[in-house]
Amino acid sequence: MPELDLSVDVVDLTADLVNIASESLHEADIADAVERSLSVLPHLTVRRDGHTLVAATSLGRSERVVIAGHLDTVPENGNLPARLEGDTLWGLGTCDMKGGVAVALKLAAELNAPVRDVTYVFYEAEEIAAEHNGLGRIAREHPEWLEGDFAILMEPSNAGVEAGCQGTMRVEIRTTGERSHSARSWMGSNAIHKLAPALATLDRYVAREVEIDGLVYREGLNAVGVRGGVSGNVIPDDAVLTVNFRFAPDRSENEALAHLREVFEGFDLIVTDSAPGALPGLDRPAAAAFVEAVGGQVGPKFGWTDVAKFTLLGIPAVNYGPGDPSFAHKADEHVRVAEVRSVHERLTRWLTS
Amino acid sequence: MPELDLSVDVVDLTADLVNIASESLHEADIADAVERSLSVLPHLTVRRDGHTLVAATSLGRSERVVIAGHLDTVPENGNLPARLEGDTLWGLGTCDMKGGVAVALKLAAELNAPVRDVTYVFYEAEEIAAEHNGLGRIAREHPEWLEGDFAILMEPSNAGVEAGCQGTMRVEIRTTGERSHSARSWMGSNAIHKLAPALATLDRYVAREVEIDGLVYREGLNAVGVRGGVSGNVIPDDAVLTVNFRFAPDRSENEALAHLREVFEGFDLIVTDSAPGALPGLDRPAAAAFVEAVGGQVGPKFGWTDVAKFTLLGIPAVNYGPGDPSFAHKADEHVRVAEVRSVHERLTRWLTS
Repeated sequence: MPELDLSVDVVDLTADLVNIASESLHEADIADAVERSLSVLPHLTVRRDGHTLVAATSLGRSERVVIAGHLDTVPENGNLPARLEGDTLWGLGTCDMKGGVAVALKLAAELNAPVRDVTYVFYEAEEIAAEHNGLGRIAREHPEWLEGDFAILMEPSNAGVEAGCQGTMRVEIRTTGERSHSARSWMGSNAIHKLAPALATLDRYVAREVEIDGLVYREGLNAVGVRGGVSGNVIPDDAVLTVNFRFAPDRSENEALAHLREVFEGFDLIVTDSAPGALPGLDRPAAAAFVEAVGGQVGPKFGWTDVAKFTLLGIPAVNYGPGDPSFAHKADEHVRVAEVRSVHERLTRWLTS
Repeated sequence: MPELDLSVDVVDLTADLVNIASESLHEADIADAVERSLSVLPHLTVRRDGHTLVAATSLGRSERVVIAGHLDTVPENGNLPARLEGDTLWGLGTCDMKGGVAVALKLAAELNAPVRDVTYVFYEAEEIAAEHNGLGRIAREHPEWLEGDFAILMEPSNAGVEAGCQGTMRVEIRTTGERSHSARSWMGSNAIHKLAPALATLDRYVAREVEIDGLVYREGLNAVGVRGGVSGNVIPDDAVLTVNFRFAPDRSENEALAHLREVFEGFDLIVTDSAPGALPGLDRPAAAAFVEAVGGQVGPKFGWTDVAKFTLLGIPAVNYGPGDPSFAHKADEHVRVAEVRSVHERLTRWLTS
């Protein structure tokens, strides 16, 4: 049973978190370890729902901040365990987002009297279909646990503030045909061949770039899965292409789907997963005050993040965490040690002065 | 443990065989039942290798005929158990090729003194990659078990004689890319998108028809499988399209591969399975004599069949069996009762007069 010692250095704690494997839907070990490490802290009230933990101070401060991070990772890609090399920590989840989780855990352990009340959220299943998302479940079933004036989602943002986020939608393009023996293929109809125009569309698609509040968002339309085939001798009667559309926050989910229907005209689309984007919201006072306190440049968030969930709850939210998001989900995922320390120090300063 | 009673009517025996499920690589039950039913017949010497059985008379006749059929089927497709409706028997394997196997088993049981010595072969794993094929293994490891002057492969041929067979080759077209988070797809490279030109090629491919010895062969080039994808958030770095080429017997395997390399120029092809075609060989005396004795029209065999294996052993061979091969591997697979009876009667007459 893995244990976490929150008194170690924040970079060591990141490595310790990385070394507790936690692919989506397999977060029991890491959630147990986080729960045990938080439950001994007298200044926090810890709640658990599934493999999602919510720990809060109750100091009666005039403002409450929510600091959130997900515990899960994408599947391993030959990049475990964590490996520290000079100024860089390598490994699955170092960037997305155990560096941010380590910072949040350090803040939770060290700050027993922050100047703002803080609610720390450590949640499950962010990397897979939205229905599994732990933060989403809490927002639906225990919205009072998430009450606050401002939220910081510690997704990797190069230790700078990233505002808004793009939406994401997954659709299945399903073709059907008729099975026959492949030696007499003219008796059947090949479902895989029927995917050809959809793949050609994807291959030549030019994604849009759009400027909102001075930030340039960049969309993407990609196949993330394809499958079909019965056996080596049979003309396949069924094939499925799964497409992921990442759309800028000026499109609603309905508009995003309308665009996909236009792009894939003639195909049936089945939406299997959808989450709206979030507009940057830099005009809101709480967001502007935070940005000024921690300093640094503000950029657009390309990835979908759960800031959209806070937006839907009416809570201003930004992304702010260590790590270059370009390396998320890649074999050479890593985080710079200096960014982990910088985010830790700036948040500590903001919460103590 | 299923048992077979070879004294029942040949159509009932077909149904009994259908009702012993025997998808490729799962032939133990049916091979055991066939072995038990043959081993009680005093006029036969029964040999077994894996799930392949060879039963032979030893009457010292001047001519020996090999009669062969495979015991396996493609995967179930909602078409079990067997169902007799009027003049038609429906179900998986009725056509390909338990009708033929039933005829061969009836001949084996009934003819204790045929005018030609007969070697009956019931073999495993014909419907999958050639490496598993039971007849191929016997031809390599015990070629003396297959000695004969003429071979009849009881693959479905509408109860007519079908000559030669087309070759078959399976290749994998593998594309590679680079993983990245799908929210920043421009950091990666999508292996599934790279399959687009190959699928387009398949979709527009026009298959050749060619006349040989007066018979028109018809080729086919088809995707039989496609897979790719890591998870819903990841640009995939690997995709595989499996293609099956059915080629007329005027092309060698090398020529078939050269054609595929030309058609899929720019892609790497990996051959995973290959079997040569067989020229019709209607000019050979043994083939001509059989055709004359059983009567009926002679047509080309589109499917690959193991007549090619006999051709390689220097034994003239034809396809002759009940069932319309157009319905092989289809959900509505069936055999006409009259064809099962007709093949049974004609072979009985040929072997007894």
